[in-house]
Amino acid sequence: MDQRIKNRELRKKITTPQKAAEFIKDGMNIATSGFTPSGYPKAIPLALAEKVKKTGEKIRIGLLTGASVGDELDGALAEQGIIAKRYPYQTNKPIRDRINAGETAYADIHLSHFPQQVRYGFFGKIDIAIIEAAAITEEGNIIPTTSVGASPAFTRAADKIMIEINTSQPLELKGIHDIYQLQDPPSRKPIPLTKPDDRIGYPYIPVNPDKIQCIVITDIKDNVRPFAPVDETSRKMAGHLIEFLQNEVKKGRLPQNLLPLQSGVGSVANAVLLGLLESPFQNMDFYSEVIQDSVFDLIDAEKIRIASGTSITPSEEGLIRFYNNIDSYKNKIILRPQEISNNPEVIRRLGSIAMNTAIEVDIYGNVNSTNIMGSRMMNGIGGSGDFARNAYLSIFTTPSTAKNGDISCIVPMVSHVDHTEHDVHVIVTEQGIADLRGLSPRERAEVIIENCAHPDYKPMLRDYYRRAVENGGHIPHIMKEALSWHERFLETGSMK
Amino acid sequence: MDQRIKNRELRKKITTPQKAAEFIKDGMNIATSGFTPSGYPKAIPLALAEKVKKTGEKIRIGLLTGASVGDELDGALAEQGIIAKRYPYQTNKPIRDRINAGETAYADIHLSHFPQQVRYGFFGKIDIAIIEAAAITEEGNIIPTTSVGASPAFTRAADKIMIEINTSQPLELKGIHDIYQLQDPPSRKPIPLTKPDDRIGYPYIPVNPDKIQCIVITDIKDNVRPFAPVDETSRKMAGHLIEFLQNEVKKGRLPQNLLPLQSGVGSVANAVLLGLLESPFQNMDFYSEVIQDSVFDLIDAEKIRIASGTSITPSEEGLIRFYNNIDSYKNKIILRPQEISNNPEVIRRLGSIAMNTAIEVDIYGNVNSTNIMGSRMMNGIGGSGDFARNAYLSIFTTPSTAKNGDISCIVPMVSHVDHTEHDVHVIVTEQGIADLRGLSPRERAEVIIENCAHPDYKPMLRDYYRRAVENGGHIPHIMKEALSWHERFLETGSMK
Repeated sequence: MDQRIKNRELRKKITTPQKAAEFIKDGMNIATSGFTPSGYPKAIPLALAEKVKKTGEKIRIGLLTGASVGDELDGALAEQGIIAKRYPYQTNKPIRDRINAGETAYADIHLSHFPQQVRYGFFGKIDIAIIEAAAITEEGNIIPTTSVGASPAFTRAADKIMIEINTSQPLELKGIHDIYQLQDPPSRKPIPLTKPDDRIGYPYIPVNPDKIQCIVITDIKDNVRPFAPVDETSRKMAGHLIEFLQNEVKKGRLPQNLLPLQSGVGSVANAVLLGLLESPFQNMDFYSEVIQDSVFDLIDAEKIRIASGTSITPSEEGLIRFYNNIDSYKNKIILRPQEISNNPEVIRRLGSIAMNTAIEVDIYGNVNSTNIMGSRMMNGIGGSGDFARNAYLSIFTTPSTAKNGDISCIVPMVSHVDHTEHDVHVIVTEQGIADLRGLSPRERAEVIIENCAHPDYKPMLRDYYRRAVENGGHIPHIMKEALSWHERFLETGSMK
Repeated sequence: MDQRIKNRELRKKITTPQKAAEFIKDGMNIATSGFTPSGYPKAIPLALAEKVKKTGEKIRIGLLTGASVGDELDGALAEQGIIAKRYPYQTNKPIRDRINAGETAYADIHLSHFPQQVRYGFFGKIDIAIIEAAAITEEGNIIPTTSVGASPAFTRAADKIMIEINTSQPLELKGIHDIYQLQDPPSRKPIPLTKPDDRIGYPYIPVNPDKIQCIVITDIKDNVRPFAPVDETSRKMAGHLIEFLQNEVKKGRLPQNLLPLQSGVGSVANAVLLGLLESPFQNMDFYSEVIQDSVFDLIDAEKIRIASGTSITPSEEGLIRFYNNIDSYKNKIILRPQEISNNPEVIRRLGSIAMNTAIEVDIYGNVNSTNIMGSRMMNGIGGSGDFARNAYLSIFTTPSTAKNGDISCIVPMVSHVDHTEHDVHVIVTEQGIADLRGLSPRERAEVIIENCAHPDYKPMLRDYYRRAVENGGHIPHIMKEALSWHERFLETGSMK
């Protein structure tokens, strides 16, 4: 423990998860570390859930995190009905079910906006921040673990801080983090980051030790998620994408090593990125939110020179691989606060190539990434808006169909909009690619239908579009039918 | 002319509008100065329209501007069928009619994105830039007139440059402009602007004189637009807004002099801003896109300390007032390229209070600012997305009804989305204000319906929402009915 907690005074604050959980009261706002099941606290939330389960005590809290967290936090607390409010992103079934049932009030917020809005006071007072740490320095500062997320904003805003020292997280994580903190308006200064490998901050989260309420020791591992195996659909999407990027290089619109890549969360994003292994591109930079398994492959193949993100988001094997080679990966990987990894200022300056996944896309280029059939929350917008809006190139990928073909992912009108027609440059499905830059909505409709839709749905889309054009307008639609595909699916189980 | 064109060599390039127009050929991309009918070229486009009218020659061009331009450009060319493609914003009836008829391909693009995307080559080659100037310096650089817009990007990207010296624009404009130009990725640096009054560039647009093809002299005045008189509805919206802002100051979330204000284009925005004259706020900063009449009033009343924008967008009387007091206004007004006035980096750093107008808003907080009944383009998104997405506070104003009450501006689902639920903090109608920060969609629906909807439509909205909730989901909807209000309006002329 001498290595884990260098400050002697603070060692006196070590307590049990059960005693720590006692500080959490009904009505509190609890803000925790954690980003895409990495680096979230586990022992204290498990103790809290256990207590509520045993005693039946009514505790309802607001839970604020960096992004999604594991089952020991979202799942355990949701199952006990503890989460009254939830911000800004989740991927956990128990909490998702409660959100869709209206039992948990969830606000789905751009991940770069969230930390500053916490400081601005938009979510009320933060009572306690619970932060997972690899270690605490002599001065009482926190060395985070596999994610940084919103932890620096939370420790700044919270009245009290609880720390979970997680001994399953190697001490060698020290030095991988780059914690730069922003002043708030009207005193904010330019962020001095001009290359993905710039280090501009501290290797720890500065903390006022007086705010540390208690420290808990645990060894519960991050409950990371597996990636689905790469399928033919993903391979085809990656192929279209690489061909497109090669053409942009040929036309002189992109340098030989491209511009810094961003890639969304999940299996499809991971698989598409993996396709770059077989591309001719070398010496690429990766400036993104999450660092998934494919990035390790690209680093190992010397395709990626540097990877900057806010979280390591690997599979179980990926995590072991990362731990086993941490000293060499540390030279190629930087973890930053999500306020910096996802910052519009930096993304626009660097000129990101943003690659995010869609749930559905409409014929005019609007993208739904969050709500199935307009209503049922899947995960959340996450950082996709931070990147898509500010990127040099904003690309969305989706298979052309879902549910064994019963859903067309290309529809007349999306049932929920997360990325507007103004923010979508390129759409990729396994069928092909639609380059929407400079096109009017009518021009977009033709290229999206012809290049991206599944053959089973093309005639229906063409028919809708042709009849909509008879109505006229910049964005031709038939109000009565625009959402009829979703209606049909809800009624019959198929859009066909 | 010695004062207007200081470079002697360039005086030799003076020609007639008719001869200049001869350089414009079918298929060309023509990029012009001009932003919200200010500072756009007039003589050359009028000569081109006249020629096509007389000769019947087929000339179809792509027209790229800063934002909207006057009738001498958009109107005259549209009426002759000259505009094949149009970017990125317009407010002119002849061009709008052609856009909605599908005769002109219009892409509606964020105004801060457009200039860089022109340089990136997303719209193809720019053949000619036509820039209105107050004067040309000894070195051949351009002193713009009442707007800067995208002119610096256009002169950089274009093969050739034509200049319209407009003698109706006073030479005293010299010194009002601050032209800072960005490098493109991967070489871009932080924008060194940390206060609205910072001057970070040149007082002219740097130009390579070899690219100057010809110069035309004209005295046609900017065809500015009147503002509608301030009505009771606007007065009530301003009242709600001021009360809200006062409360934010009281809660410690805003400083006494607020944070830099942004206000959208048009009569409602002008009227709402005018309401600040009767507010207790002093020493405010204004960091916006357009500087309308109300800003002159606020400067004169010493309410606004500094006003930064990309365009002076006054009424006819406002323009005369500006010209008559130009030397004193010059100390309080800065005109920048739209890439800087609307830059996400700067807007987020300064912490703007963004106040934009909506066409319609839905019960979950999504905003339509562009397409009436989902299809008919009104003007375009303009800079509203640049500000709303990056603001400290993102506020949208709209009267609760339109068309004498036949349209409810609060609807179950907007028929087109420009600003998603993730980007809208506050909605203001004459009925009241809805503060959406930290609220889930269901919580938003209740506050929007109760605080903002017109009493005539409240029961219908409550009924839709109540039945939608029975379907469940994070964002409860009834797909079959979500757009039925628009459908009904199109069929019967009323949403009732």
